[in-house]
Amino acid sequence: MIPEKSKRVSLASRPHGKPERNDFQYEEVPVPEPENNQVLLKTIYLSVDPYMRGRMSNAKSYVEPFQLGEPIEGGAISQVVKSNSSRFSEGDYVIGILPWQEYCIASEKEVRKVDPSLAPLSSYLGILGMTGLTAYFGLTDIGQPKEGETVVISGAAGAVGSAAGQIAKIKGAYVVGIAGSDEKVEYLTEKLGFDKAINYKTCGNIKDALKEACPDGIDVYFENVGGEIGDAALSLLNKFARVPVCGAISAYNSTEGDIGNRVQTVLIKSSALMKGYVVNDYADRFKEGASQLGKWLSEGRLSYEETITEGFDNIPEAFLGLFQGNNLGKQLVKVSDTE
Amino acid sequence: MIPEKSKRVSLASRPHGKPERNDFQYEEVPVPEPENNQVLLKTIYLSVDPYMRGRMSNAKSYVEPFQLGEPIEGGAISQVVKSNSSRFSEGDYVIGILPWQEYCIASEKEVRKVDPSLAPLSSYLGILGMTGLTAYFGLTDIGQPKEGETVVISGAAGAVGSAAGQIAKIKGAYVVGIAGSDEKVEYLTEKLGFDKAINYKTCGNIKDALKEACPDGIDVYFENVGGEIGDAALSLLNKFARVPVCGAISAYNSTEGDIGNRVQTVLIKSSALMKGYVVNDYADRFKEGASQLGKWLSEGRLSYEETITEGFDNIPEAFLGLFQGNNLGKQLVKVSDTE
Repeated sequence: MIPEKSKRVSLASRPHGKPERNDFQYEEVPVPEPENNQVLLKTIYLSVDPYMRGRMSNAKSYVEPFQLGEPIEGGAISQVVKSNSSRFSEGDYVIGILPWQEYCIASEKEVRKVDPSLAPLSSYLGILGMTGLTAYFGLTDIGQPKEGETVVISGAAGAVGSAAGQIAKIKGAYVVGIAGSDEKVEYLTEKLGFDKAINYKTCGNIKDALKEACPDGIDVYFENVGGEIGDAALSLLNKFARVPVCGAISAYNSTEGDIGNRVQTVLIKSSALMKGYVVNDYADRFKEGASQLGKWLSEGRLSYEETITEGFDNIPEAFLGLFQGNNLGKQLVKVSDTE
Repeated sequence: MIPEKSKRVSLASRPHGKPERNDFQYEEVPVPEPENNQVLLKTIYLSVDPYMRGRMSNAKSYVEPFQLGEPIEGGAISQVVKSNSSRFSEGDYVIGILPWQEYCIASEKEVRKVDPSLAPLSSYLGILGMTGLTAYFGLTDIGQPKEGETVVISGAAGAVGSAAGQIAKIKGAYVVGIAGSDEKVEYLTEKLGFDKAINYKTCGNIKDALKEACPDGIDVYFENVGGEIGDAALSLLNKFARVPVCGAISAYNSTEGDIGNRVQTVLIKSSALMKGYVVNDYADRFKEGASQLGKWLSEGRLSYEETITEGFDNIPEAFLGLFQGNNLGKQLVKVSDTE
């Protein structure tokens, strides 16, 4: 039964610093009929990700800012409930960048099919999707760890970090993760096979802790968090180290600029490379990445966790929790069951 | 006439912050006879360079620190005055990393011949030597400017900066230099063909001035100075920009760490690359670089300036002047005339 109205979440105000619940507004909109080459979709899973904070600000970046009063959009898995497209049938599962909305219309070009018989639906948003690809390209193309090198991952128990660390292990590196709870530290070393993990909240001086965990220095620092953790890791880089800069979650809510150690002298001393990227920079290699990730997954060499928040009404809470580090692995919102 | 004693300059104390005259100590040492496979050298030109500040501190870096009480060493052009080596004859000119000393002994492996009939002697320390190679490899290997792209050079009227800017012009880029006096600005635009130049001391807000000078943003930022100039340039990077990090002279005398804008979010937004380097990273390509620089020089496509301080007694002043920006182009000390 398709309802007449659908809830959606729009951006009520641009967050100043840390986003708050009332920056988000719930509304009801009609559920229209799909026109030619369109499908009507029912949302199953929504992905909430730290990068979305950037789109809530009105600043130049690699993607357009969200518009005030318009629905927020992000990665989603949906099911086709009505099709006016020859490409899709009712019941098909699709993935796309879609609005935070229970039901929505999409043109057939905006989505592509996913096959739930090959892998769990949610994994297309995570390890086999944007998350896994982000880890894969940042680590293998920029980080390029060699056997025996030391790789440090910040935000290591998050979706991208946990994948990046496992790929580094597959490449034969000595891998050290930094995370924010004892539970996460245990997950990294016991379940994912990291060689060492540091709880930055309880370790005392993070630089000293990193030094102890990395007796041979750092060859690859996979950056997810920035801030003082980034400062410490960068100060321990070896000659010709590589630093894929994937995220800087500690800075996303800053209202006073991101002030800390400048990197110039550090990079000169170590002849190190730092490179920022977003996963879409690698769009022409997504097939290669997804195929490699799928292979490792099927061989049992990659595992992943999901933190699934239930219910459309809890999307803002799930998103805000990212900045508290509430999630282990990929944070998703389960909006509805499949038909 | 070879004297019995030679003056030398040794490191009297490790500078705290900005080096001072009394961190350097003049001494007299005997002039010995060259042993087997050694030569006795008379110093003609000494090169003083900002990177040497790093060796005066006792910190891990890409080269060993100078030792207290031992002579400071750097790039030098000398003349063989006595030879006990089959490779060198009296009167030959050689280049090497040699002590700040009027006369010194070197093993035949520590120096190599240079030919004053091909280019002025001093140019082997500058445009055809370490300086030119530093500019060449940083700009062409890391910066990789394409025709029509915008290249910004800080420390643009210095030895490396002025070479880097001219190479960027040869590559067809739009080139903007940043320097510290109106005289330097005029030199860059009138003599070297830079498209624009900014006097950072009088331009007001450096970021605004850069924005105005670079209407299409920055594709390559060749970093020599760091600090607030670096912060401003990095904030204007275009998508896929490249930042060769050659120097950060503003930070070399800092006693309280180098605090400013962290770069992580900037690099992510622009998918930009920053890479530190020292010229020795390219040792296996020096021949290629020197040959290319020599070609451009002979074609009149590269020009260079030298600031030559006269007299062995004035080495510390010449070195200290680098941090005041006293030099235009390469700063050298002329120690003695050729025989």
